[in-house]
Amino acid sequence: RGNVRTEHVKRLNLTRRLQQERPLPLSVIKTIVTSEMGQPQGGFEELIGLEVAMGPLLADGRTLAPKRIGEVAKDTGLSDDDIRKFAAIGLIQIDSRKGGDWLNQRNVKIMEIIAQTRADGFTPEIGYTVESYAIYPQMIELLARRAVVGFYSRLGDKLDQPAAAKLAVNGIRTLSEMVPLMLIDRIVRMVEKVSESGKLPASDEDV
Amino acid sequence: RGNVRTEHVKRLNLTRRLQQERPLPLSVIKTIVTSEMGQPQGGFEELIGLEVAMGPLLADGRTLAPKRIGEVAKDTGLSDDDIRKFAAIGLIQIDSRKGGDWLNQRNVKIMEIIAQTRADGFTPEIGYTVESYAIYPQMIELLARRAVVGFYSRLGDKLDQPAAAKLAVNGIRTLSEMVPLMLIDRIVRMVEKVSESGKLPASDEDV
Repeated sequence: RGNVRTEHVKRLNLTRRLQQERPLPLSVIKTIVTSEMGQPQGGFEELIGLEVAMGPLLADGRTLAPKRIGEVAKDTGLSDDDIRKFAAIGLIQIDSRKGGDWLNQRNVKIMEIIAQTRADGFTPEIGYTVESYAIYPQMIELLARRAVVGFYSRLGDKLDQPAAAKLAVNGIRTLSEMVPLMLIDRIVRMVEKVSESGKLPASDEDV
Repeated sequence: RGNVRTEHVKRLNLTRRLQQERPLPLSVIKTIVTSEMGQPQGGFEELIGLEVAMGPLLADGRTLAPKRIGEVAKDTGLSDDDIRKFAAIGLIQIDSRKGGDWLNQRNVKIMEIIAQTRADGFTPEIGYTVESYAIYPQMIELLARRAVVGFYSRLGDKLDQPAAAKLAVNGIRTLSEMVPLMLIDRIVRMVEKVSESGKLPASDEDV
């Protein structure tokens, strides 16, 4: 893999140098790079920088300004310490830069949801501690990894960046709609089953 | 556990008989049952039938009429066979009754999403087969189980049905909002990392 990595860095540097030197479409630059270095081994060279093309498609009209942790704490009523604990278990991601620790808008929203859910009655005192949320990032990590690896390995050499960005964002929307529907349906059916059987489903881990 | 089961069935039968015989609040009936049979062992007797109280709170204004599989196939363009395969991997649930196989509105919607995602370009031909979706129900099952077991074991003996139903539905809404945000954030960060490193994240399983 080290070889692939070096190869990749070389290709990436050449691509970037060409982009700076000549205002050519990426497809042309790619042809030049390939003529100099041969076919890429990774198969998804074209998709390097995909996040940039995805950015505008993922924006949803709300402001996407990040907030400092202290500001999020003040706005939500959560403690600074709890926010950092949620980051430690992976429920949110802290971006450290410009002499401070920031949450992007999505992570701000997650903290707002947690604050609301505590206000609803899911409090640490009755067992809804920070640690009790650790299963979510674990599962999400697996789903995300599967989605990303699947996407690049199936489509990395078939699409240009604009097409790939559009498709990737559609895929993310699909998951965002499908997963909650599945979760609600599964929970309701499980509750029905508990009522019918009087028994809780088996749980391998401590709840 | 067999003992708890028998005990539960007895309590449930007594509760139902009392409900039919006398129009009393459930709290009063519970007191009668407890006076006849002692404290329940399970600790969530009060929540038996919770799905009924949750029903109206989960309705979202759309019609919740179920559809027959044939109708869903016609409306979405998916084949009858594919719909049954999605059920076989657990992505959707088929309800067999009244001489037919039905999907409830949530499962109809999941099939509509899948049809749209195929139209977008995530086709079986390039690898997005029915089987490639199997990871989702596996993960969702674990999340749902954790949520349900956690809820009953922490709150089963603390809340009456209306309060529990309200809280449970709030909890479901929390998960429905939080999980997609986490998923989007994780995928975007992973894409950034792929661009930066030129390497795909490790995937334990075949993608």
